[in-house]
Amino acid sequence: MKLATLRNGRPDGHLVVVSRDLTRFASAGRVASNLQDALDEWDRCAPILAAVSDQLNNGEISGMPFDPDDALAPLPRAYQWIDGSGYMVHLDRVRNLKGSKDEELQDEHPLMYQGGSDSFLAPRAPIVIAEDDQALDFEAEVVVVIGHVPMRPTHEDASGAIRLIGICNDVSLRRLVVNDLQNGFGFFHAKPATSFAPIFVTPDELGAAWSDNRLHLRVRIHVNESLYGQPNAGKDVRFDFADLIVAAAQTRELGVGTIIGSGTIANAHDDILPLKHDGIGFGCIAEARTAEKARIGKARTPFLKPGDKIRINAVDADNRSVFGAMEQVVKLL
Amino acid sequence: MKLATLRNGRPDGHLVVVSRDLTRFASAGRVASNLQDALDEWDRCAPILAAVSDQLNNGEISGMPFDPDDALAPLPRAYQWIDGSGYMVHLDRVRNLKGSKDEELQDEHPLMYQGGSDSFLAPRAPIVIAEDDQALDFEAEVVVVIGHVPMRPTHEDASGAIRLIGICNDVSLRRLVVNDLQNGFGFFHAKPATSFAPIFVTPDELGAAWSDNRLHLRVRIHVNESLYGQPNAGKDVRFDFADLIVAAAQTRELGVGTIIGSGTIANAHDDILPLKHDGIGFGCIAEARTAEKARIGKARTPFLKPGDKIRINAVDADNRSVFGAMEQVVKLL
Repeated sequence: MKLATLRNGRPDGHLVVVSRDLTRFASAGRVASNLQDALDEWDRCAPILAAVSDQLNNGEISGMPFDPDDALAPLPRAYQWIDGSGYMVHLDRVRNLKGSKDEELQDEHPLMYQGGSDSFLAPRAPIVIAEDDQALDFEAEVVVVIGHVPMRPTHEDASGAIRLIGICNDVSLRRLVVNDLQNGFGFFHAKPATSFAPIFVTPDELGAAWSDNRLHLRVRIHVNESLYGQPNAGKDVRFDFADLIVAAAQTRELGVGTIIGSGTIANAHDDILPLKHDGIGFGCIAEARTAEKARIGKARTPFLKPGDKIRINAVDADNRSVFGAMEQVVKLL
Repeated sequence: MKLATLRNGRPDGHLVVVSRDLTRFASAGRVASNLQDALDEWDRCAPILAAVSDQLNNGEISGMPFDPDDALAPLPRAYQWIDGSGYMVHLDRVRNLKGSKDEELQDEHPLMYQGGSDSFLAPRAPIVIAEDDQALDFEAEVVVVIGHVPMRPTHEDASGAIRLIGICNDVSLRRLVVNDLQNGFGFFHAKPATSFAPIFVTPDELGAAWSDNRLHLRVRIHVNESLYGQPNAGKDVRFDFADLIVAAAQTRELGVGTIIGSGTIANAHDDILPLKHDGIGFGCIAEARTAEKARIGKARTPFLKPGDKIRINAVDADNRSVFGAMEQVVKLL
């Protein structure tokens, strides 16, 4: 099934079930008032929500037209947002930017940071920055939402705890990264609110696109009208989501509704921007810039600036959107 | 007024108003089902809760006996937990441990990290560790809970957003700090679940003990039967809570119910452990150990081990507990 949260004037919004083709929705208000409530009582709620989904998809319920402009992030706020480093290609490309040191360690144990989860950006909300010289970048990522995970889980415990899958834009202010990491206690100011595509999807609904704790879909990114990337999130994965969950729970249990991020999706290739229509490209601008430095001696793709529009959309083999798209404009405060 | 959350089998517990002397409580269930709900509608809820508090304190409501064993953390889970560095004395004492570099920067801008907020420890819950060689330490801190704060607030906006005050134990695994900070993306594995004293208190209730965005109370710490510290949280403050909120909101807004921590409370003095009954002592073991290294050439106070009991309690001038005590035993998973 596919779930979304519609704006209703309350911080947690209104939970709805969305049709497979993203055109219609049915309220889930009688099952759970919001998505966190549904996750808190997943064993009770999931079968009822699945039945509503079936009725919506087979036409027994006509539903209402689904408009992504009305959607909040599926979890508009969450109790935990942990972002991992699933793709070594991303780390390899941006290592110098981050001033991090130990390549071998990063290949053995995924890096992760605690992200802010108090207010996520809606899929069509502007990305608001306070200054235009902070090197604003996007990071296209896959996320999973989990049930409760005990401390020191097995890989199977971790895999079995995955409830929902989605995509996000881990908005990053590159100019602030080094100060956060080298002079501070870790990522903080460099990681403002994260954006989410409107739909979270259950693993069963994804069929073959979800296997081995990985999402086997292309995630396509446009900045303004230019294609910046369409990496396959299932390729070049060093740490799958079960690995990331196991790593996150080494010194603590993880609460229901914790969101785990894959890190920037990155496939190995020799592309630079502008991208050919069948190119693979990049899940963030920082990688595009380091590739340019290596190939043509200087970084030429600019970071995002006020007025730029960033679109991130995961598509299936028939180019249909699976989670709905994030379409956001950069604005100055 | 004083608020607590009692265990009721649900993740967010049951909100209650507690009498000033911490002996009795009255349910707040008719006003808000839990503390986050009350914070989300603070303007509506606070006056009603204050009226219940008045009735409880003047005897109009008899209430029920308050037992801290039944209490969860006042916010058993939160959408955000940001810990700051309010006391330079703490940073000065432990700087070498953390491998951080820039003393001057830290005196100009508070350091802060994003803490895990998905499941806080109840005031009497055990502190469970997976291995006994991770150098388990406590950090006694003051916290505030805030309403919504916009990006780039004024000092006055920040001060006015403070809704509740409490104390916590920012449990730390010292052996994992350097790896988190030097090889990773910042504090993560070194900061497992944080513990909270059972009561959050409104600024007005604290009277003179709350002024200049600081808590002017001693926070007393015992490990087993030994006094480890009783620093005054209102002294030697480099960054008050309004400063910390302003700093936290430089690149983002802060959601309702965000918890901001003061960092380890630390007063300037020349004590070492064992402490005299009128000594000031330490808000964490790491500081006690660095003081020992400086004075007697080696660190002799051990980190916490399974079976140890840690008690943290903020007291007024008459030695009465203001927030209730945290009393926790260390256990191995």
